[in-house]
Formats: sequence, structure tokens, C-alpha cells
Amino acid sequence: MTIDLSEIKDKTNLRGISFESIHLDLEIVDKNLSVELPKICGPLAEIISFIMSASGKRIRPALALLVGYLTSLDSESLKSTNSGKASLKPQHFILAELTELIHTASLVHDDLLDQSIQRRGQETIHLKWGTKVAVITGDFLFAQASVKLGEINNTEIVSIYAQVLAELCIGEINQAQSRFDLSKIDLNNYITKSTNKTASLFSAATKSAALLNQLPNHQVEQMFSYGQNLGIAFQIIDDLIDFTSESKELGKPAMGDLMQGIFTAPVIYALQDETVNLQLKELIKTRFADPGSLNEAKALISSSGGFDKTLQLAESYVTKALTELESFPNSAYKENLQQIAQFVLKRHS
Amino acid sequence: MTIDLSEIKDKTNLRGISFESIHLDLEIVDKNLSVELPKICGPLAEIISFIMSASGKRIRPALALLVGYLTSLDSESLKSTNSGKASLKPQHFILAELTELIHTASLVHDDLLDQSIQRRGQETIHLKWGTKVAVITGDFLFAQASVKLGEINNTEIVSIYAQVLAELCIGEINQAQSRFDLSKIDLNNYITKSTNKTASLFSAATKSAALLNQLPNHQVEQMFSYGQNLGIAFQIIDDLIDFTSESKELGKPAMGDLMQGIFTAPVIYALQDETVNLQLKELIKTRFADPGSLNEAKALISSSGGFDKTLQLAESYVTKALTELESFPNSAYKENLQQIAQFVLKRHS
Repeated sequence: MTIDLSEIKDKTNLRGISFESIHLDLEIVDKNLSVELPKICGPLAEIISFIMSASGKRIRPALALLVGYLTSLDSESLKSTNSGKASLKPQHFILAELTELIHTASLVHDDLLDQSIQRRGQETIHLKWGTKVAVITGDFLFAQASVKLGEINNTEIVSIYAQVLAELCIGEINQAQSRFDLSKIDLNNYITKSTNKTASLFSAATKSAALLNQLPNHQVEQMFSYGQNLGIAFQIIDDLIDFTSESKELGKPAMGDLMQGIFTAPVIYALQDETVNLQLKELIKTRFADPGSLNEAKALISSSGGFDKTLQLAESYVTKALTELESFPNSAYKENLQQIAQFVLKRHS
Repeated sequence: MTIDLSEIKDKTNLRGISFESIHLDLEIVDKNLSVELPKICGPLAEIISFIMSASGKRIRPALALLVGYLTSLDSESLKSTNSGKASLKPQHFILAELTELIHTASLVHDDLLDQSIQRRGQETIHLKWGTKVAVITGDFLFAQASVKLGEINNTEIVSIYAQVLAELCIGEINQAQSRFDLSKIDLNNYITKSTNKTASLFSAATKSAALLNQLPNHQVEQMFSYGQNLGIAFQIIDDLIDFTSESKELGKPAMGDLMQGIFTAPVIYALQDETVNLQLKELIKTRFADPGSLNEAKALISSSGGFDKTLQLAESYVTKALTELESFPNSAYKENLQQIAQFVLKRHS
């Protein structure tokens, strides 16, 4: 139940959180994804095994399982006297796995679209195996997620995840469309994009896990809101550490977003500050042809308080996420869900 | 109800079939795909509109609608005396649309994977707009298909289509893996690949349309079998006309499969003939570096009877498809389904 800091080798790696409460369950999910899945992938086995064994954070599966336990406790305590027994349904495991599959599939295609060269400290799929393999591998992972979605046998969950797939595309398209476009810089747009790109999959996992336990609507919505706010905070911190961490820690080149003209919260806040606005805009217009200009931009953002404000923004979403948990019964699962929210912020420090 | 040959400008274009029985319904499907869909595609509107307005055959939507009508007639005649009234459920339209969406999405990604330069007489998406646009457009179309799949609200149909997505990938991977590989030439492998690549989507449409009308299992399976056998015949004829038609008629370079080392029924049959086996193998080993060698190969296949045998193979699948229709009530819908099966063969002549 505690965050085992000794295991945290990389600030960006949430595997370091030791979830005693779902440790064995996560191992099952991990085995299904890294060992069982490649067995049915034919010629893609090696590639799928490489991807699924890479040091992913598995935060999305953990959320599905933890909310599954937490809300089983709740619904059972409402229905019977057996209030202390939390349990998962087989569908919660499928949910955990398909959520990770969608996440991974979107990473493979996004890395191709963004021409990223590194992911989790490894070469990206399109660099290692080529464009064709990246396209078909992403498609295959999306297809396997759909197969698992069918196995859950719940039409509401199908609709939720279908919407997620659409939003992932919309988020990616909007990001590609607005590169280096200073006219589209706006905090609301940024939050919408972060919701589409990241939070919608988080909230799909938490909402669906609650739905599987037939919770009343308002509690399902609380779990949705927990996932959504957590997801937005997660993306904000991701964007922050893209500036503040070193490439080695990130497992990919630092300040990659800025270099590619993707303007995240720190830049948006800095541009709101009149003392640095003009200088920063001038740097952006050079498209960072001079490598030193990235660090100049970073210094401007820092002096304008852009990083602090970004952290505060993430904190506000974490607070909202934590509030949604309050009315649920105290348990190891609730504690873990609180820890995940707090850990999202700690990734920065 | 008649095949209006005057409208057939292109042998590969099934739009020429005039389906009076579902004419207006197909127009609704067409409008939803070509006009309504682009409206929600944001920056992709122009591209989606271009793709969905291209002269697709719409054979898959037609199958969903015709089977929908035919099986409504049947189930109603079992339940009541009102046996003459055929009708569609709103879900049949969604089914028709999502089937075409999956087909179109897979074409966009397949053209990218195969580096095809033309489709339906137009430049392919990846050539016209680039790799990134082709990846995201395919993903977006798959996602929209998923959204519609959710709207159908039937978990069995979700599972059927999820399986189709997986099989499309497997078909594409196996094809890529076995290029120019003479050791993998086998008629059973070829039929399996054709089932994965083409027939599984046909049978998903026909089976699901029957399922929506709550038909008894054995009739659902008959509709599945109709779609599957028709789909296999369709793919066989597609592979045949890749040899026998001109590039202009095909809307893409002729003998593209052979050029890329994809060995279809005509080649498989020719290689079974000892009189041409060695010569054909020698040509294949040159990978058709000399442009004239493609026509040499075509002559060898023709002299071995490879084209005739391929046509006979397709005919045998069409016969199986037609048999599955026999026990269903006579109607315009049944006639149209028979005509589609016969038209699949006529595309060759």
C-alpha cells in the first residue's frame, strides 16, 4: 500500500509504486499482455512482445482494477452485510488489458505521426522496424482491444471506448493542425486537447470499472470525474517534465514538444506574461533552428513563473480527483487511488 | 431489380447494379457517409469527403440492407400473418454504414502498406496527402466505425466485427510476409487469406443483418455462409481481373499483385501445371525486373488454364452462396442477393 521509493529508478516510471492490494492482479494483466498476447500475434509476436514488455507505467490497468475493487466493496455493502469483501469480476481484467492495449496502440501510431525517435528509452517502432510495421502493429493492437471489448459483453462500455478512439484521433489531429500556430494558443483548447489525448482513456477505465459493478449513476459519474481529472493532471505534468527533466530521465529528447511547435501549459502561461511575451514569440518564430534557443525559451518560461503555474494547474485537477473519492468506503484501494493522484504530482519533483 | 448494364461504365464498378428495392435506402447510407460524416471530421473533412465520395461499389452496405429486408420478411412471416411486409430496423442502416467505414479504413491503410499509387482511378491518400494523413485518416474511420458499432447496441455484433478487424490485420500481415515466397504457395492458404482479407467483412454484414431480426441460429448461419462464400468469390474474381483487365478499367496498375509477389489463384493453378511450372518460377525469381516478363507470365498462366480454373473456383463459391438463399422467401430482396452473386462472376467477362 506504500509508495516504495527505492524501486523508483526513473521519475517517469510509475511501476515504482508498489500496490500490494492489486499486486497479483497486475501481474496477471502483465502476463496476459507481455506473454499470452504475443502468442497469438503470428509474425508480429516479436514486435508485440517488445512493445508490451517495455517499461510501461501500467497506470491505466491499475486504475481499472483499483476502481473495480473499490466499487465492488461499495455496491456489496449496499446490497448485503458482507461489506468487507472486495472482489473483481473477470471483466475487470479484460477492461484493464484493453485499456492498456488502446494506450499502447495509440503510442505506436502517435510516434509515427510525430516522427518520435525514442519512447521509454528505446527506439520507436517505426524507426526500429519501419513505417509499415508501425501502421499494422497499431492496427493489430487496436483490433485486439476491440476483441476484448466484445468479450466484456456490455454495450455501454463499447460506446464509451468507441468515443475514446474517436477522441484520441481528434486530439492528435488538432495537435498536428495547430503546430507553431500562435493564434490557437489558449488554455481551454489545451485542456480539451489533454482530455481527448489522455484523460478520456483514464475516465473510460474508471467509469467502466464502476459500471461493471452496477453502481448508481451518481457514483459512476464520480468515478468518471476522478479518472478525467486525474488524466488531465497526468497530461499537464507530462508536459511540464518535458521541460524540466533531462532526456535520459524522460526516455526521449527533452523539450520535444516545444521543438515541434506543440505549445503546452508552461508556454501558454509564459505568453500571458507581458514581460516575456515578445521575446518568447520571437524565439518560437525561429522554430528553434539554433539549438541554444530552446534553453533560452526555457529560461523565459521559468522567469515568468510558467512552470509554477503549470504545477498549480495540475494540483487543482488532482484536488478535484481526490474530492470524488471522498464518499467511497475507506480501504486499501481508496488509499492507492489517492496515492496515484498524489504520485502524478510527485513525478515533477 | 434489373442489372442496368448501360450504367456500368467500369467492369469493376458494382454501382451499375440498379437495386430498385433498396435504392432509397442506399441513398440514405450514401448521404450519411459522403455528406453527414465529413461534417464531424474537423480538419479531416475534405479528405473524408474525397474518400467517401469516390466511386466505391457500396456492395457491403447493399448486402446488409438486402439481408435486413429479406430476413425481416422471414421472421415476420413466422410470427404473424403479415408476411408480405419487409422492413429495416434503424440498426440495419448503422450496420451498412459501419461496414463501409471499416472497408474504407482498411483500404486507406492497405494502400499505404502496399505503397499503391492508385485506387478507384484516383491517387491514393498517402500519395496525395502523405503518410501521416493516411495513418490518422484510417484510424479516424476505424474509430467512427466503432462509434457506430456502439450505437447498434448488440454485444454479439460487436464481437463479430472485432474479429473482422483482427482478421483484416492477420490477412494483411500474412500477405506481406509471404511475398515472393514460393514455398508458401497453397490453395488453402490462399482461401484463408481471402477469407481474412475480404470475406470476413462480407459475412459479418450478412450475419449481423440477420441477427438484428432475431432469426433462428441455422438461418443466421445460412446468411453468414452466403456472405462468406460470396466474399471469397468476390476476392477470387478481384484477383483474376487484376490479370485480365487493363489498368484503366481497374483504376490501378494491372498485374499489381504479381509484380509485388502476391501469388493469387491464377498463379497457384499455373504452378500446379508441370508444363509451365519451371518457366513461371524462373520469371518470378527475376521479380519482374524486365517489364515484358509480366506479360510472359500472363501468357504462361493462360496456356496452363490458370485463368479458367480460377473462374471455376469462383463459380463454385458463388454456387455455395446461392444455395444458402434457397430456403428464404422469394422476394425482390432475394432476387437482388442472387444478382449480386451472379454479378460477382460477370465482373470477369
